[in-house]
Amino acid sequence: MARVLAGAGRDAQLALIRAHPELAGKAMVDQTLTAESTGEQNRAGLTHCTPEEFARLQDLNAQYQAKFGFPFILAVRGPRGTGLSRQQIIDTFERRLHGHPAFELQECLRNIHRIVELRLNDKFGVEPVTGNLVWDWHEELAQFSDAGYLEHGQLTVTYLTEAHRACAAYLQAQMQACGFDHVAVDAVGNVVGRYYADKPDAKTLLTGSHFDTVRNAGKYDGRLGIFVPLACVRALHAQGRRLPFHLELVAFAEEEGQRFKATFLGSGALVGQFDPRWLDQLDADGITMRQAMAHAGLNPADIDGLQRDPADYLGFVEVHIEQGPVLNELDLPLGVVTSINGGVRYQAEMIGTACHAGTTPMDRRSDAAAAVAELILAAERRAAQDGDSVATVGQLMVPSGSTNVVPGRCQFTLDLRAPTDTQRDAMVADVLAALAQIAERRQARYTLEETMRAAAAPSAPAWQQRWERAVTALGVPLHHMPSGAGHDAMKLHEVMPQAMLFVRGQNAGISHNPLESTTSDDMQLAVDAFARLLDQLTTDA
Amino acid sequence: MARVLAGAGRDAQLALIRAHPELAGKAMVDQTLTAESTGEQNRAGLTHCTPEEFARLQDLNAQYQAKFGFPFILAVRGPRGTGLSRQQIIDTFERRLHGHPAFELQECLRNIHRIVELRLNDKFGVEPVTGNLVWDWHEELAQFSDAGYLEHGQLTVTYLTEAHRACAAYLQAQMQACGFDHVAVDAVGNVVGRYYADKPDAKTLLTGSHFDTVRNAGKYDGRLGIFVPLACVRALHAQGRRLPFHLELVAFAEEEGQRFKATFLGSGALVGQFDPRWLDQLDADGITMRQAMAHAGLNPADIDGLQRDPADYLGFVEVHIEQGPVLNELDLPLGVVTSINGGVRYQAEMIGTACHAGTTPMDRRSDAAAAVAELILAAERRAAQDGDSVATVGQLMVPSGSTNVVPGRCQFTLDLRAPTDTQRDAMVADVLAALAQIAERRQARYTLEETMRAAAAPSAPAWQQRWERAVTALGVPLHHMPSGAGHDAMKLHEVMPQAMLFVRGQNAGISHNPLESTTSDDMQLAVDAFARLLDQLTTDA
Repeated sequence: MARVLAGAGRDAQLALIRAHPELAGKAMVDQTLTAESTGEQNRAGLTHCTPEEFARLQDLNAQYQAKFGFPFILAVRGPRGTGLSRQQIIDTFERRLHGHPAFELQECLRNIHRIVELRLNDKFGVEPVTGNLVWDWHEELAQFSDAGYLEHGQLTVTYLTEAHRACAAYLQAQMQACGFDHVAVDAVGNVVGRYYADKPDAKTLLTGSHFDTVRNAGKYDGRLGIFVPLACVRALHAQGRRLPFHLELVAFAEEEGQRFKATFLGSGALVGQFDPRWLDQLDADGITMRQAMAHAGLNPADIDGLQRDPADYLGFVEVHIEQGPVLNELDLPLGVVTSINGGVRYQAEMIGTACHAGTTPMDRRSDAAAAVAELILAAERRAAQDGDSVATVGQLMVPSGSTNVVPGRCQFTLDLRAPTDTQRDAMVADVLAALAQIAERRQARYTLEETMRAAAAPSAPAWQQRWERAVTALGVPLHHMPSGAGHDAMKLHEVMPQAMLFVRGQNAGISHNPLESTTSDDMQLAVDAFARLLDQLTTDA
Repeated sequence: MARVLAGAGRDAQLALIRAHPELAGKAMVDQTLTAESTGEQNRAGLTHCTPEEFARLQDLNAQYQAKFGFPFILAVRGPRGTGLSRQQIIDTFERRLHGHPAFELQECLRNIHRIVELRLNDKFGVEPVTGNLVWDWHEELAQFSDAGYLEHGQLTVTYLTEAHRACAAYLQAQMQACGFDHVAVDAVGNVVGRYYADKPDAKTLLTGSHFDTVRNAGKYDGRLGIFVPLACVRALHAQGRRLPFHLELVAFAEEEGQRFKATFLGSGALVGQFDPRWLDQLDADGITMRQAMAHAGLNPADIDGLQRDPADYLGFVEVHIEQGPVLNELDLPLGVVTSINGGVRYQAEMIGTACHAGTTPMDRRSDAAAAVAELILAAERRAAQDGDSVATVGQLMVPSGSTNVVPGRCQFTLDLRAPTDTQRDAMVADVLAALAQIAERRQARYTLEETMRAAAAPSAPAWQQRWERAVTALGVPLHHMPSGAGHDAMKLHEVMPQAMLFVRGQNAGISHNPLESTTSDDMQLAVDAFARLLDQLTTDA
């Protein structure tokens, strides 16, 4: 349906949207809604609105219609299918009033797709049972949040806090309940579960992701890659089925670098990259990492022993929410990752000549901001030329700028990423050449400091193909994409083959934000894909 | 010489610079300098350097030569011809080490021209006696500075402070000493001197400029337009000569809008534009304008009476330092102003979509900073197309920007000016259309608030021609230019014909800065041009 609609043109899309009943609208009052729509709006509690809520929704409907020329459409049964709260609906409405018209048109169509998906589930008696379970696990885990955030309803779980250890305990209990044979918290705080193979000398498939979060985070970043394999082992255990390889699921204790400066503490420890000097790093409260570990009952001296011998392992796979808009825009639930992008970051300043904005003719200026503007567009064009490279100027400022002064200085950052180091380096060379050329032509100079450089981690072809076959087997169209963000798989990449699977994010793929979301239907597909991958490995063995 | 050199090509220019002896260099030690150069360096005290100063100069010479490939050249006799201090020389050297190579080459040539100018003066026994006097008046007036600035050697004179009233008293005394018939401080604080015509019923030529300053200002902005006519009246009085018209010189009390929000208080009062509500404006210390005026012994009730009857006046002329780089780059001492540019200013914000710099492909972004970058370049191109329009984005910031986040917001200002309102409005229309088009294409939106709009003040043709004839009569090549900055003449323009004369600024024409400078030779030419203009009016009468 998504593909047919995408090809149908704007008029047909608008007609579909306009045919949709208004949310809590006059139609509801007039009782002219379809039975299905009434049921959905009822489930979301919209038939029990207070007079104030009803008036607010009517007002929002009118504003939305006036601004965009089509009605606001929202799949009120939500990502779990059990209905959004009235407050969630009003919040979403208010947020989307600020959307760009082109985005809102597509977002309405996406909501229609979601409504159709839920109705087809009902019609065919299909329920994403495991997807719903995985969804509920995320909700349960999201109950734990650091002091100072929990009180504000915000999710924040940083390394070795009380909330973090509560998460570890929850995950340990779930792994045990789902049938893992051996579950333990290791010396760096990872929760490690092993589901034994049908023979003791088998190799091991490693999987997992992190359970720590950024501040005021979403619920799915990292955690989805723990719960999807957990659900698979739960099913294997229920069937009494053993695989011809051990399955090791690691819930990594730390990836985000929020409490201490060091990042990838969890996955880094598995590849022998824990630097003892990090133990003296301080958190914002002046607590050292060493103290935090002692408080959590961890012994740093044992971290060295966590390093895995790659000879024991088949490889590493990781499921992760996309954290980007691509799958959402393409109406695809899953994406196969081709590479985790390599990146370089710079902190820079352009120095031109500050002068009077009225008295300095255009051809006698050395405008630092105009020079940076040229660079921004050059970097944008250069990255777009590759298709899958990205270039971003995220910080930009004329220090102490005045309306009537031509900028003499302009500070900015550059973030350049590409699926391979070669591709990244070619782009970096071109962008820096453009920078030099722009500065030369504009009689400006600049400072440039490299602040970060990370190697790309291309997926191992054999493992990428396993994900491709798993996705295709589900009847889901195949889409390849690089990962723009870093993941635990980057660390394991250094010692064993790895490949990742991405799951679609709702709300334009927003991440590191409470609006991060995915549906239980998409989670079900991720679990099914993971199970297919296990099947393939079983057949191959 | 300037024109011959400009046409001689880079090799010849470099050869000339390289032939010049090094400042406080080996040549001095070896006693191989020309007698002239030694005399000049001696006058600047360079032959009496401390060992530390000498070492510092040697080091700077080496750095400069290494960076640019030619020696540092500075007319060490300076703008007054009497020699820079050793500290001024070292400061200039250090500043120019940061210059762009193309600028430094030209700045060395300009310094050679200045050296030649001074040597020719000596050879022909010419001394800019009146120019030197005018120079010295500026120095004397610059002794008064507001509390908090004086202590740091900074010049700041804001409306009706102690320093401001000391300046008024100085100007009043100088006008009296130079032979004005009637001198008084008016109700708004202007110092007004009248040099009577040879007949009482004659019309009046109005001239003058402001003596208040911005914070940490230059010494010439405004004040040059007071001292140049003052020097002319001094000469007329010394000759016992009367003109066939009254000459009224007004030292305007306020133009810069530094202490209170209102600007052009001085010249505005003469055209009936003093708004009594301004009396309640507060300065940074919470003092109202009314209190400040009472403290200075001024009676606001009398301001209305300052409005001039245009029927009594021939017109208004104003001499002003250029405050821009044009005359300096063209090696011309004087410029005839064709118009004071009309301007519009906006405060704006571009709103795109903040997203992950790694995970969001280039073709799925709505990058607010990239949209503004496009606008900056579009405005730059559009202004350049007119030749004499200017467009500036002076403030530019991504609020709370992060290296790895695509900017969702970007705040900026727009300042657009042109010699006529028609030309300005055409440019504004094009730039705002570009803004709308860029936002639309990039799926962004924006806010835009007009914060200022000032009409252009084209010079009265007859008065502009008088300045042209005066400049030509001095043998100075004629150059026409708009004024990018606002001046008191803008206010008088509303009631009578006006035209301005610009005087070259040194140091790339920098203004609102202690480096603002001009030479006593250029001041002499300005006085001579003003005298020629008086002669023409006498002949015309």
